[in-house]
Amino acid sequence: MIEASVTRWLAEDVGAGDLTSEIVLPTGSVADLLVQTREDIVVAGLDVAIAVFRHCEPGATVEVMTPDGTRCRQGAAIARVKGPARGLLTGERTALNILQRMSGIATLTATYVDRIRHTKAQLIDTRKTTPGLRSFEKHAVVLGGGRNHRLGLDGGIMIKDNHIAVCGSIAAAVARAKAGVPFLTKIEVECDRLDQVRQALDAGADVIMLDNMSLDELREAVALVGGRVPLEASGGVNLDTIKGIAETGVDFISVGRITQSAPCVDIGLDAAVTA
Amino acid sequence: MIEASVTRWLAEDVGAGDLTSEIVLPTGSVADLLVQTREDIVVAGLDVAIAVFRHCEPGATVEVMTPDGTRCRQGAAIARVKGPARGLLTGERTALNILQRMSGIATLTATYVDRIRHTKAQLIDTRKTTPGLRSFEKHAVVLGGGRNHRLGLDGGIMIKDNHIAVCGSIAAAVARAKAGVPFLTKIEVECDRLDQVRQALDAGADVIMLDNMSLDELREAVALVGGRVPLEASGGVNLDTIKGIAETGVDFISVGRITQSAPCVDIGLDAAVTA
Amino acid sequence: MIEASVTRWLAEDVGAGDLTSEIVLPTGSVADLLVQTREDIVVAGLDVAIAVFRHCEPGATVEVMTPDGTRCRQGAAIARVKGPARGLLTGERTALNILQRMSGIATLTATYVDRIRHTKAQLIDTRKTTPGLRSFEKHAVVLGGGRNHRLGLDGGIMIKDNHIAVCGSIAAAVARAKAGVPFLTKIEVECDRLDQVRQALDAGADVIMLDNMSLDELREAVALVGGRVPLEASGGVNLDTIKGIAETGVDFISVGRITQSAPCVDIGLDAAVTA
Amino acid sequence: MIEASVTRWLAEDVGAGDLTSEIVLPTGSVADLLVQTREDIVVAGLDVAIAVFRHCEPGATVEVMTPDGTRCRQGAAIARVKGPARGLLTGERTALNILQRMSGIATLTATYVDRIRHTKAQLIDTRKTTPGLRSFEKHAVVLGGGRNHRLGLDGGIMIKDNHIAVCGSIAAAVARAKAGVPFLTKIEVECDRLDQVRQALDAGADVIMLDNMSLDELREAVALVGGRVPLEASGGVNLDTIKGIAETGVDFISVGRITQSAPCVDIGLDAAVTA
Amino acid sequence: MIEASVTRWLAEDVGAGDLTSEIVLPTGSVADLLVQTREDIVVAGLDVAIAVFRHCEPGATVEVMTPDGTRCRQGAAIARVKGPARGLLTGERTALNILQRMSGIATLTATYVDRIRHTKAQLIDTRKTTPGLRSFEKHAVVLGGGRNHRLGLDGGIMIKDNHIAVCGSIAAAVARAKAGVPFLTKIEVECDRLDQVRQALDAGADVIMLDNMSLDELREAVALVGGRVPLEASGGVNLDTIKGIAETGVDFISVGRITQSAPCVDIGLDAAVTA
Amino acid sequence: MIEASVTRWLAEDVGAGDLTSEIVLPTGSVADLLVQTREDIVVAGLDVAIAVFRHCEPGATVEVMTPDGTRCRQGAAIARVKGPARGLLTGERTALNILQRMSGIATLTATYVDRIRHTKAQLIDTRKTTPGLRSFEKHAVVLGGGRNHRLGLDGGIMIKDNHIAVCGSIAAAVARAKAGVPFLTKIEVECDRLDQVRQALDAGADVIMLDNMSLDELREAVALVGGRVPLEASGGVNLDTIKGIAETGVDFISVGRITQSAPCVDIGLDAAVTA
Repeated sequence: MIEASVTRWLAEDVGAGDLTSEIVLPTGSVADLLVQTREDIVVAGLDVAIAVFRHCEPGATVEVMTPDGTRCRQGAAIARVKGPARGLLTGERTALNILQRMSGIATLTATYVDRIRHTKAQLIDTRKTTPGLRSFEKHAVVLGGGRNHRLGLDGGIMIKDNHIAVCGSIAAAVARAKAGVPFLTKIEVECDRLDQVRQALDAGADVIMLDNMSLDELREAVALVGGRVPLEASGGVNLDTIKGIAETGVDFISVGRITQSAPCVDIGLDAAVTA
Repeated sequence: MIEASVTRWLAEDVGAGDLTSEIVLPTGSVADLLVQTREDIVVAGLDVAIAVFRHCEPGATVEVMTPDGTRCRQGAAIARVKGPARGLLTGERTALNILQRMSGIATLTATYVDRIRHTKAQLIDTRKTTPGLRSFEKHAVVLGGGRNHRLGLDGGIMIKDNHIAVCGSIAAAVARAKAGVPFLTKIEVECDRLDQVRQALDAGADVIMLDNMSLDELREAVALVGGRVPLEASGGVNLDTIKGIAETGVDFISVGRITQSAPCVDIGLDAAVTA
Repeated sequence: MIEASVTRWLAEDVGAGDLTSEIVLPTGSVADLLVQTREDIVVAGLDVAIAVFRHCEPGATVEVMTPDGTRCRQGAAIARVKGPARGLLTGERTALNILQRMSGIATLTATYVDRIRHTKAQLIDTRKTTPGLRSFEKHAVVLGGGRNHRLGLDGGIMIKDNHIAVCGSIAAAVARAKAGVPFLTKIEVECDRLDQVRQALDAGADVIMLDNMSLDELREAVALVGGRVPLEASGGVNLDTIKGIAETGVDFISVGRITQSAPCVDIGLDAAVTA
Repeated sequence: MIEASVTRWLAEDVGAGDLTSEIVLPTGSVADLLVQTREDIVVAGLDVAIAVFRHCEPGATVEVMTPDGTRCRQGAAIARVKGPARGLLTGERTALNILQRMSGIATLTATYVDRIRHTKAQLIDTRKTTPGLRSFEKHAVVLGGGRNHRLGLDGGIMIKDNHIAVCGSIAAAVARAKAGVPFLTKIEVECDRLDQVRQALDAGADVIMLDNMSLDELREAVALVGGRVPLEASGGVNLDTIKGIAETGVDFISVGRITQSAPCVDIGLDAAVTA
Repeated sequence: MIEASVTRWLAEDVGAGDLTSEIVLPTGSVADLLVQTREDIVVAGLDVAIAVFRHCEPGATVEVMTPDGTRCRQGAAIARVKGPARGLLTGERTALNILQRMSGIATLTATYVDRIRHTKAQLIDTRKTTPGLRSFEKHAVVLGGGRNHRLGLDGGIMIKDNHIAVCGSIAAAVARAKAGVPFLTKIEVECDRLDQVRQALDAGADVIMLDNMSLDELREAVALVGGRVPLEASGGVNLDTIKGIAETGVDFISVGRITQSAPCVDIGLDAAVTA
Repeated sequence: MIEASVTRWLAEDVGAGDLTSEIVLPTGSVADLLVQTREDIVVAGLDVAIAVFRHCEPGATVEVMTPDGTRCRQGAAIARVKGPARGLLTGERTALNILQRMSGIATLTATYVDRIRHTKAQLIDTRKTTPGLRSFEKHAVVLGGGRNHRLGLDGGIMIKDNHIAVCGSIAAAVARAKAGVPFLTKIEVECDRLDQVRQALDAGADVIMLDNMSLDELREAVALVGGRVPLEASGGVNLDTIKGIAETGVDFISVGRITQSAPCVDIGLDAAVTA
């Protein structure tokens, strides 16, 4: 699957040909590329970046200093790639683009995770990912210490206010879900109020989402549910608020920002090319 | 081309089926979706978001209040979509994901452009885009008031330090490029120093990039070149520095951040579903 | 997704061209096709068969007498399709092939379901489907009255003897699963013996599969678990044994045969072609 | 072409990831798989099953005991596959699904062929195959001792009652076919009655199909044609009737059941996984 | 199938965008295109050219003056296409490229066919076609009055000297072919000498190719075979020699040049664009 | 990219299988193929032809005598390929088809280039290429000594009479182009008259095309422009006229014929097959 994505990305960038490499670089030129981080990061996407280089130059030599999932200090060498210059320079930008983006997500995820490490709460992601990069971004979340919520619309039932409205009640919506859902898939109900939490619990929801609740409401919900099903807090979570939310006793906290708004981290690539 | 991307994105999110819509929503349910911005933005990607909804429900009714390229105030209604609830709710997340991301880029681009509006300098993008979203992000840059640099590796020759080193000189590298480049494609040379600018000019470069130069160096380069070829300033450009750079008299300023680090803007979608 | 499959199937059958239709049928010939069942069936795949005809002749007129999911007596008319003869005769065989196969699965599923209708047990399918037809066959199971187990390997965790062996214990395997599984996905443990059932329960499995157990063992497992998690009976299930298994009190019974060994049902197509 | 199918099948089963293998199996686990038949079969699809395993684990070691086309007794070992457990267990179900299905077809074909071995008649298949598996199923027929009729609609002209009706006569339909058919492709005419056989012969048909004729009619047709063109008997052929049909002297007997209704054979896979 | 090819061709030409149309043409511009031939031709590929225009502008209005297969005099109007200028000008070059090429083949084919119209010989094509355009070029041959040989390697058995050598004899090669060939496919044997013709006839070949024989040899072969199987003359056929070859009494003459060396004919497109 | 094309071409030719190779050639047969030219040529497409053979038989041994770009005399050996006969004979026709076509283009290009070698003018190609073969044909032009114009519609702006008409003037059309064109892409204006040349120059066109001008007009245009921008002569260029055109002092001459009407050159393939 990585291979299919890499093929598509390179087709996008190369189009009808990498004119500069093909025309300017002498045949037989060799490149020695050193990938280094210019800030503190959690590495993610190195495997993918290497797949980009290998796609361009199957015979390239790759040395990995800090594999995916490693926390690195500014200045650390991440990997070194050597081989024919034409292909490696063709792939360079695409390799960096995915590496900087995935490492950005892993790094921001780790920052969030660090804030709640003293609690039992786990950080989970959302479906707010970049179109086309879902699996890459969800993998970066895991490398940063987070967990995945569901991988896509086939990975779980999420009953929201609209479903409840159109079915008539939480009980009715959950009943429809239970009758048709594939056997190994859970049913989650999104609740805005405590009475909904009670109804979801009675209806047999597998998981309950507490949406945009105050810390007091979260605490009440935790007490009400008493560990019978896992609770997910969602909405308004940022680096300032997450600690307080985690300390209410919820099991999971979902954060859209870790995939939606993580800036690319600054990873550099120094290339030495010789004829 | 939009259609092919939309198909892939929805396949990514839907996988083996949108379990919630298929199982919980009664057949015949109808949705009325209102897309509204929760912050000041430049709209971009609305056409694409609509293509997502139409892919899911070809018969949906779409009303556009603020077409792509519009500057909107917080709270403005952007579009309204009505049709069968199953398909529209299936597409909702994907539609928002691309709309929020493209509008994020257009909005940040406009912020940069606003800083240099009093000069002749134009803002241009780079190849630092999200793998798979090149054309969407470059289009968002244009909607935000920027210009495109090249669309991909087939859209121009960029001679950098490595090409110069392996060819022996700027003159030699440009000569190779001139001999082989397709007739309608320009040749740009990246220069770190003023003597390189002089060499590039003599070699017949079509465009010269001034990489990471001080404001004084930029001014000297502008004077040296005297309008014979366009000059692009690059490196270290941010919202604080761009005004000064533009005032040196360069023709173009390229900024990677507008595609690399634009956060998704906060656009909401309110859905009313009826049986 | 149906459209992509139909395109592939027709390409497979047509190859470089439907020589007979193109050469022998006069331009402008019109066909009137009547689809009738020659045995008692549950209709499944009619929507897909119609998609085949429409792919060949977008302007064909289709009348559906017995939609998908209907139980039909031998001789019942299922649908009537009229339009240009060339395209309809090109699609005829492919349309019948999928209709006969899906209806075969739905019909056999219904036969199984009828045997256990007096119990609370539900019939579920397996991953023993025809490569390339997973979603079609799983949909046929639902039309026949069964439920889906998981749609694919991303739809649930199934811990089997090998996983237990290599992890050291059921507890260890379930712990690994719980730490990494996406949040809305269940964990099932396959157990051959009652002590394993106890371990799986203690480990926090969401579902327990009772593999190839005797009726007595099944009853003991049901008593042991006491409704805390759903139980799936599996192995050695056929039309003779399923009633007894269902009466032990298990919640689900999985049957590979409904997709693996359902013969195509005999559905005929009478065509009248006029110039 | 096998590779493209295997890729599609695995995508179908794996979806967003084989959660169980990725999460539960420790990195570095090794699997040793033994494929054995639990009934008497003709092996078919082993090459394809191996392609599935190799797709998942290119470095797997494969030992083939009974290659495609071999008749095996119950209990015979068919093949052994060793390699990294994650990939091999991911591919296991898909590999078995195709192997059991193709071997089912080859085994049923061989049963039919055995009934007519004392005659000159040859068993041939039809276009009644599973959508998407045409070439695999036709290959299984050959491995079981049958012959292929045509591979698809581009592999021959089949003139049926409808073509005759719309063209006005067998002579007119065959004349149209002869004028336009690619040079190396035969023309077959489907006949229900002896006078049609005579007309088809006079019209210059390359092959004549005798559709649903009684044994007496078949014998008369054989006498009438006197070896000038090959004769295919079709319709109502099963294990009870095929011997009699073959003994009438026809050249070919086509049977839809060998592909439409062959149950999967019972082939097991024992896996030993070690860390 | 046409649609898939058109999509690929336009992607090839358009790449990341038709810059000229998108940037220079005002939104809402309308084009009126008149397609006219500048030499005497047989029209072929007009349907495909129209598919190109419709792909670019689904709402374009198309008027066909001389449909595919028409012989046209220099200056004749072929078709007129009106609609949004952006899309139509994007497709113009691709539409003309295929129309000029296919019409070139049809025109050259007709020239050959005209030379042998007084004989019973028919002109047939070969597999010497442009990679990717097989079906388009074979269709152009038919429009020019020729016949197709086989559509591809699955459309017939061709036994050549190498097959004969490695099998030991013509008889042995034909026997292998007869045992395995799909039932509706013919077997042709390529013969250089008359004794081979005799052997091929005895072996039961369905068709005999006479390769590079003199007119005397061709006449002898015709006499020898006496109408029992069709004879194809091949090799050294051009506009000077074809009449003599046809008059020897052979049934078919194959000519690679009609697809390999037909120049594009001169068809012009006059466009009037208004804002 | 070559690989994707080769896969498609072979699928086109092979369809459901190479019946002759699979059925007639004994398993284990080995082929020794010698590719030789039967006329004087410039070799082009040999790399692609070899990719065809390697696709069919990855383990084939290939010896290249005259690599792409070599001028060869009639009778010269070009390459030798050895390996399993089944695959190599399957690929033979496709390999020759592309090799003969690309070498035809390179050879004709070289003939044109030879006529203008004494001038500074360079030969360039057009977009008049075979649909689906753009990059192959443009590469053949380069191997024959020509240059590429633009690779596709994304490789440059071409302002023609229609654009000028709808924009109001050359100045207006060029202004639109300059405002929107990606930074590294040139703008060319097609001119029929000298006053247009003057306007294009004033408007700041990067390149000017002189369309169908007389030799006198061309000379005047050269004088008028005085080297400020490159000039391309176009229209009515053939082997008789090109020398005169080149001697007017234009910089580039574009010729559609080199891709539109180059006949395939006669390259033969002698195969020796042994069991």
